Amino acid sequence: MGEGQSRLDLFIDRMVSQRACLDHAIAETAGMPGPVFELGLGNGRTYHHMRSRIDGRDIYVFERAVAAHPDSTPPEARTILGDVRETLPAARDRFGPTATLIHADLGGHNRDKNDAFARLVSPLIELLLAPGGLMVSSDRMYFDALEEQPLPPGAVPGRCFVYRRPGGEGA
Amino acid sequence: MGEGQSRLDLFIDRMVSQRACLDHAIAETAGMPGPVFELGLGNGRTYHHMRSRIDGRDIYVFERAVAAHPDSTPPEARTILGDVRETLPAARDRFGPTATLIHADLGGHNRDKNDAFARLVSPLIELLLAPGGLMVSSDRMYFDALEEQPLPPGAVPGRCFVYRRPGGEGA
Ligand SMILES: C[S@@+](CC[C@H](N)C(=O)[O-])C[C@H]1O[C@@H](n2cnc3c(N)ncnc32)[C@H](O)[C@@H]1O
Ligand code: NI
Ligand code: NI
Repeated sequence: MGEGQSRLDLFIDRMVSQRACLDHAIAETAGMPGPVFELGLGNGRTYHHMRSRIDGRDIYVFERAVAAHPDSTPPEARTILGDVRETLPAARDRFGPTATLIHADLGGHNRDKNDAFARLVSPLIELLLAPGGLMVSSDRMYFDALEEQPLPPGAVPGRCFVYRRPGGEGA
Repeated sequence: MGEGQSRLDLFIDRMVSQRACLDHAIAETAGMPGPVFELGLGNGRTYHHMRSRIDGRDIYVFERAVAAHPDSTPPEARTILGDVRETLPAARDRFGPTATLIHADLGGHNRDKNDAFARLVSPLIELLLAPGGLMVSSDRMYFDALEEQPLPPGAVPGRCFVYRRPGGEGA
């Protein structure tokens, strides 16, 4: 007993932080026209949330194998199927640096694996973000040109990270 | 947009309510010696939470098919494998009405199915609870002898329910 945070505690902190960071990032980028990228669909809860809060921007979902709740499955035309190590570079060719918001929740249960993967995909993600665009992640990322932002109220430090590409309107 | 609560919102409310009700029920029954029953292991998050907060009481887990996180898998001796429609009546024979706390999170995504199942298992659960014992559920239950309790602070109405068998010390 008293061994600190339970898995339930950690999970709640992660979910609450994701929502706080997403709501903040959606509001901050609301005036921008470019697409939104969801990396990792999973159960579809954060996609469902983003879809219900984002108006006038296309949301593209990058996922290896779609297995979400039916009401949280993106239309085929905005599903980018495959390993992000391949689909992110392809998206760079297709979209250029136009994404206004990128959310990544790609991690599993292994911290070290998550960190190694975050290092691997950071440069691929970085190239997609528009000036002034925001990136929200459940893992710490390793960017050159993006700047870590202070967390919004309600987010728990260490459970969520927000990055911004300098430039754009708000710069 | 603006279509009210997202699946993420609902999920957070459910997790937060589970934790609030469990913490409350654990504290309320802390002086009682009888076992604790977890109905539905799932990912094992609430079991992990209960295990980290409960001292001196055995926690038995009722589950059809164990597929939890390794650090949240109960020991075999306290795993009661099978369909609760069969294992709950067997537990009545084995334990009598001695459970001090029963938590049930057996539902899936279909509301009507969950409600029908709650009606079915309510009489089976009722027989296991000790006088003064508490029952926490994610679904509304249908008990004869148990009394619905006010929710503790932090729990969201409709996302969690607490019931008590009259009698015992606190009666
Ligand atoms: C929603 S999950 C429980 C989640 C858990 N509270 C957690 O925090 O991870 C529901 C679980 O109940 C189990 N279950 C559902 N119906 C059952 C039944 N009739 N008998 C035994 N187990 C059942 C399922 O196999 C599933 O693992
Ligand atoms: Ni689902
Ligand atoms: Ni897990």
